[in-house]
Amino acid sequence: MPATPIARPAAETIQAVVRELQAQFGNRAVTSQAVREQHGHTLTWLPNQPPDVVVFPHTTEECADIVKLAARHRVPIIPFGTGSSLEGHVNAPYGGISVDTSQMKAIIAVHAEDLDVVVEPGVTRKQLNEYLRDQGLFFPIDPGADASIGGMTATRASGTNAVRYGTMKDNVIALEVVLPNGEVIDTARRSKKSSAGYDLTRLMVGSEGTLGLITKITLKLHGIPEAISAAVCSFASVKDAADATILAIQTGIPLARIELLDEVQVRAVNLYSKLTLPEQPLLLVEFHGTDAGVAEQVERFRAIADDCGGGNFQWADKAEDRTKLWQARHDAYWAALALKPGGKGVSSDVCVPLSRLAECIDATKKDIEETGLIAPIVGHVGDGNFHVLPLMDENDPAEVAKVEAFMGRIVERALAMEGTCTGEHGVGQGKMKYLKAEHGAAALALMAAVKHAVDPEGLMNPGKIVAG
Amino acid sequence: MPATPIARPAAETIQAVVRELQAQFGNRAVTSQAVREQHGHTLTWLPNQPPDVVVFPHTTEECADIVKLAARHRVPIIPFGTGSSLEGHVNAPYGGISVDTSQMKAIIAVHAEDLDVVVEPGVTRKQLNEYLRDQGLFFPIDPGADASIGGMTATRASGTNAVRYGTMKDNVIALEVVLPNGEVIDTARRSKKSSAGYDLTRLMVGSEGTLGLITKITLKLHGIPEAISAAVCSFASVKDAADATILAIQTGIPLARIELLDEVQVRAVNLYSKLTLPEQPLLLVEFHGTDAGVAEQVERFRAIADDCGGGNFQWADKAEDRTKLWQARHDAYWAALALKPGGKGVSSDVCVPLSRLAECIDATKKDIEETGLIAPIVGHVGDGNFHVLPLMDENDPAEVAKVEAFMGRIVERALAMEGTCTGEHGVGQGKMKYLKAEHGAAALALMAAVKHAVDPEGLMNPGKIVAG
Repeated sequence: MPATPIARPAAETIQAVVRELQAQFGNRAVTSQAVREQHGHTLTWLPNQPPDVVVFPHTTEECADIVKLAARHRVPIIPFGTGSSLEGHVNAPYGGISVDTSQMKAIIAVHAEDLDVVVEPGVTRKQLNEYLRDQGLFFPIDPGADASIGGMTATRASGTNAVRYGTMKDNVIALEVVLPNGEVIDTARRSKKSSAGYDLTRLMVGSEGTLGLITKITLKLHGIPEAISAAVCSFASVKDAADATILAIQTGIPLARIELLDEVQVRAVNLYSKLTLPEQPLLLVEFHGTDAGVAEQVERFRAIADDCGGGNFQWADKAEDRTKLWQARHDAYWAALALKPGGKGVSSDVCVPLSRLAECIDATKKDIEETGLIAPIVGHVGDGNFHVLPLMDENDPAEVAKVEAFMGRIVERALAMEGTCTGEHGVGQGKMKYLKAEHGAAALALMAAVKHAVDPEGLMNPGKIVAG
Repeated sequence: MPATPIARPAAETIQAVVRELQAQFGNRAVTSQAVREQHGHTLTWLPNQPPDVVVFPHTTEECADIVKLAARHRVPIIPFGTGSSLEGHVNAPYGGISVDTSQMKAIIAVHAEDLDVVVEPGVTRKQLNEYLRDQGLFFPIDPGADASIGGMTATRASGTNAVRYGTMKDNVIALEVVLPNGEVIDTARRSKKSSAGYDLTRLMVGSEGTLGLITKITLKLHGIPEAISAAVCSFASVKDAADATILAIQTGIPLARIELLDEVQVRAVNLYSKLTLPEQPLLLVEFHGTDAGVAEQVERFRAIADDCGGGNFQWADKAEDRTKLWQARHDAYWAALALKPGGKGVSSDVCVPLSRLAECIDATKKDIEETGLIAPIVGHVGDGNFHVLPLMDENDPAEVAKVEAFMGRIVERALAMEGTCTGEHGVGQGKMKYLKAEHGAAALALMAAVKHAVDPEGLMNPGKIVAG
């Protein structure tokens, strides 16, 4: 049973909706072209499809009011966090109301004894960690961008720390959600685990706003490690770096982060961040633990790296040195873009079983060469997840077509290796076309049946994941 | 939209189904009274409700055949693992076909480099760990009973190791499932993470056979730790033991297990397992890591336990001593039953935020005293999860009523502390009555809508979780 296809609402309907929103929200309901376009922006080649109106709620009740209003008029709802989506999640292909949660930024309760926190969806990960620091606690998920917790939940985000701390799937304890009918539910209690029925929390995590509007998130926290050490280490080939990664993980070293940069990405980072890293494949690793524990991890990792031909170790035990290294890593996207001034980049994020990673990256590098692209690679290799960022002139249709075909081949290659088309960015609009190949028709039909059951009118973020 | 209520099929329908099953499965389709009753057994006060026929498939295709046959005749399907359910999950209130997966015991593939394994649902956790041992790998989830992996997946099981390694929710990578319409899907790829659409894996984990029949499970594995140490430590009160637990977890000691036994349970264990533990509240802890790491964990835990008045440390570094300790812990259920010869025990499994644990257990102990029950307590206290096992004469209606009311109060108390009615046993038949109080009407309606979308005829394990 496919989700009900939806049509763009009539102009009069939108006018009525805007009138009602402005009556309730005043200048928190905005229809200016600039604000609407900013809310339909994409960091990709996907076209900007602005919503009809952007509204900035402050409370769950206001969110429920907006959803009920939308249901009454059969107008789409598009949840919006910080807009750092890479797959057009915030686009409004059928128009409608963009619900910008950026003014819902309260950190409602920190339960230090329980290692959890309850936040509103507009809280960003950096804001949260600054708030928590004095209590010796931190929230580990780090997708690079200073994304909102609501957005990270909706896309099942992960990033550099996931190899140790898991993804949003593993770190969300409970959610408050406004359902498409305007009812507000809690998906779970605050206890660490439960077997009480269907896992509504995990149903919502990664549902990209297509099943409801997230209004509160209870997250797991961790104690800030007593000792942190980071290092970079160069390898002759991507294969050697991947082998070192596999061995380190198999041996049980509890790596907090292990990131691969290929030689193209290292060159980009050197140029952009004024570093002098050897322009070879490189692993950037971080260890968390007690002083003695970190020392032991470092020693073991070093032995493994040596066995795999790793060299040029550079350590960063001091916070400022680590920050500089990780800033360079986080700037990898911008550094890559700088390799082709005026160019546009599109980021793939396939994920394969670790044992297939080297093979998958090698084949991709060969493809890059044969296709004649500039396409740096950076990866959360401990999870088998890597990004390729082909650069292109978006005004050159032939180049765009070439890159699009290349991106498709990356996904095909990952799927053939028991992998997924998206390890962390989500489906949005950009990856809908791959879901049938990944999941098969029957599983995709099951997703559509669930969507239809939860959102029979098809109003929640239509045109994403499974919608008609 | 509630799930379609189902009626018990007519006798002719059952006869036709049995004839078809016997034609295909021969003596693997069984209708003897003894086998049927064994498949409707409960370890509780729930009445035995035997299925009409028990069938023992060998392959996914056979499972799909059975499900299609059931759909054609509108006859219920009840999945069966080893029958260690504590909430009547395997009962057949509307009759139907019990699908016993115990002959699907293949360990299909161990991917050592990826730290995962693919198994059939009838594989038990002990069988799996025996198979893996030579490769230095293990599967950590340990609910006590030698349950099947299929059953553990279906109930979102956890147990003693969950404090370190998570629950089934965290350790299932992907599932193969026969849907109620007979179609076979894979819920996910074998990659460690994915953001490709709704989390069908987590939708199925904990769905207790009400959404489909699990036919393959891909599980995360872990390396067998280099060093393991276990210890027992006694405390003056449950509060002191709980405080030590909270501190240890807050400090970041990566405890592999931390189990509480109250003084009643210790007495029972001493009697049953011929031990001489001090008859006070006791923590049974286990540490996993490198030699140096375990030594450090032990030292830190000991300092915390000292601060909380812990004493009488007894260490078990040798495997045989640890086995003896854990055998005693695993026999806690039988030891408790032995406190009242001829009596029956019912096990609660509420779970609360860690900060509320001592208060919850204290209030429960007061309730036990006021009610006049023998009711040992044992808990996975690192997760805030504990079991109370009131003993009763099941032929004394007054005593049964007293225990039933007591069990209801345990759940009420846990819910009032932001906890759940079931941390790990699941809902089955026994806990359906608590779900509205726990989740609220709207969330429960959402579960029912999902059930109806996936299983519109209501044939998959009817009468469990949300079914009419």
